[in-house]
Amino acid sequence: MEKRELLYSGKAKSVFTTDDPDYMVLEFRNDTSAFDGKKVEQLDRKGMVNNKFNAFIMTKLAEAGVPTHFEKLLSDNESLVKRLDMIPLECVVRNVAAGSLVRRLGVEEGMDLNPPTFELFLKNDELGDPMVNEYHAQSFGWSDEATINKMKELTFKVNGVLKELFLNGNMLLVDYKLEFGVFNGEVVLGDEFSPDGCRLWDKDTREKLDKDRFRQGLGGVVEAYEEVGRRLGMDF
Amino acid sequence: MEKRELLYSGKAKSVFTTDDPDYMVLEFRNDTSAFDGKKVEQLDRKGMVNNKFNAFIMTKLAEAGVPTHFEKLLSDNESLVKRLDMIPLECVVRNVAAGSLVRRLGVEEGMDLNPPTFELFLKNDELGDPMVNEYHAQSFGWSDEATINKMKELTFKVNGVLKELFLNGNMLLVDYKLEFGVFNGEVVLGDEFSPDGCRLWDKDTREKLDKDRFRQGLGGVVEAYEEVGRRLGMDF
Ligand SMILES: Nc1ncnc2c1ncn2[C@@H]1O[C@H](COP(=O)(O)OP(=O)(O)O)[C@@H](O)[C@H]1O
Ligand SMILES: Nc1ncnc2c1ncn2[C@@H]1O[C@H](COP(=O)(O)OP(=O)(O)O)[C@@H](O)[C@H]1O
Ligand SMILES: [Mg+2]
Ligand SMILES: [Mg+2]
Repeated sequence: MEKRELLYSGKAKSVFTTDDPDYMVLEFRNDTSAFDGKKVEQLDRKGMVNNKFNAFIMTKLAEAGVPTHFEKLLSDNESLVKRLDMIPLECVVRNVAAGSLVRRLGVEEGMDLNPPTFELFLKNDELGDPMVNEYHAQSFGWSDEATINKMKELTFKVNGVLKELFLNGNMLLVDYKLEFGVFNGEVVLGDEFSPDGCRLWDKDTREKLDKDRFRQGLGGVVEAYEEVGRRLGMDF
Repeated sequence: MEKRELLYSGKAKSVFTTDDPDYMVLEFRNDTSAFDGKKVEQLDRKGMVNNKFNAFIMTKLAEAGVPTHFEKLLSDNESLVKRLDMIPLECVVRNVAAGSLVRRLGVEEGMDLNPPTFELFLKNDELGDPMVNEYHAQSFGWSDEATINKMKELTFKVNGVLKELFLNGNMLLVDYKLEFGVFNGEVVLGDEFSPDGCRLWDKDTREKLDKDRFRQGLGGVVEAYEEVGRRLGMDF
């Protein structure tokens, strides 16, 4: 597979075409952003760590029966993936209250959510990724009912697999965001799963091991990501 | 039925107990508020107009099979209603894009919504009535799945009845908010249906005939409410 031209450069990754129109190269950069791109920094080694982290998680999910875009690692910072027709909705599951939920609904950070919540957000930086629901998605043509139900089913399936996986590393999977796309008519998990797009706390101390370290200026961001990886048995 | 003590005084109505614990008196006041109570004014005759308007609409809905709390008019400003155990969620249906939807999602005001959207908002002035979904409602104990499904079904049933009714008066039912409660285990429509809690536009000129006249300082607020009532065959 030959890497060709740059298709799109996002906030954290760059996307390249290949000689096969069904496949793309995802390059994980060191750029780290928060607050819809208002805070941006370069964090040494982050691209490499997230690329390997994502490869590890996507492989676990595929083994558990979740269809994913991940094909293989190409280098420290690059992965080969299926080229999906992306759905402009972010799927969020929360097991514990944190982040925007706490601010918007006035609930206490750290509260267990039973059952876990499922939320849809419109992927749109200019609008600040507003929360939407299934009706908006259909009325504005962002997706259809069957696709949304499939995304919901897969997002909860991921929860079952990953809650357990992180718990074995003595971590709580507090919440996470997934992006899906369509490949040959099938709904497939795309984008990335890394500490950039989820919240992970040490189970005992509740120390934050995710991008909240960057958002809140706590330092040791990439070191925390590597610590998470090591607890899962990864090697960087 | 004897009116007893004041139970609660809200932004637009006061609620009184009666000698029967299953019934209450709703008093419609002239107070008119917007922006979560940040803009407040007294509008002459508004209490009377909304009380009669609500009685008319609730009667139409009951005839169409929607269970409502409305029992009878007691005076110009008072109605007798069943005392419900209120569910702290506002149910909103939108047939046409307007208001907060337009601002949040960056869509054009006046756009037809196909299918109409259904939204849930937490009834909480301090938090600015945030949008929520079915999962939040269950995880935070505001309601349960069966009740939410019933509220949704009734809210759409109301849409079928009222879209038609207003269309016969050459008006578009743009959107509306309903509040439900439980009475003897049954989900029942409560609160009020009036131009204070919906958007109504003249079908041809798209002139606003609802509380947006107050929000936007257009004047002629109560006059517009009366005009809507007259078009439906009401007499104040
Ligand atoms: N398999 C895929 N096929 C097509 N596009 C993808 C795939 N995986 C991720 N993407 C898209 O590529 C971009 C990844 O770069 P990122 O830096 O995360 O961008 P953004 O700033 O838009 O979030 C995102 O827009 C994401 O939706
Ligand atoms: N049938 C009912 N039984 C009990 N409470 C009701 C009923 N109908 C309306 N209510 C409640 O009474 C109050 C009506 O007053 P309102 O001025 O609209 O108050 P608010 O400022 O809370 O919206 C609301 O809190 C509403 O939820
Ligand atoms: Mg991204
Ligand atoms: Mg009210």
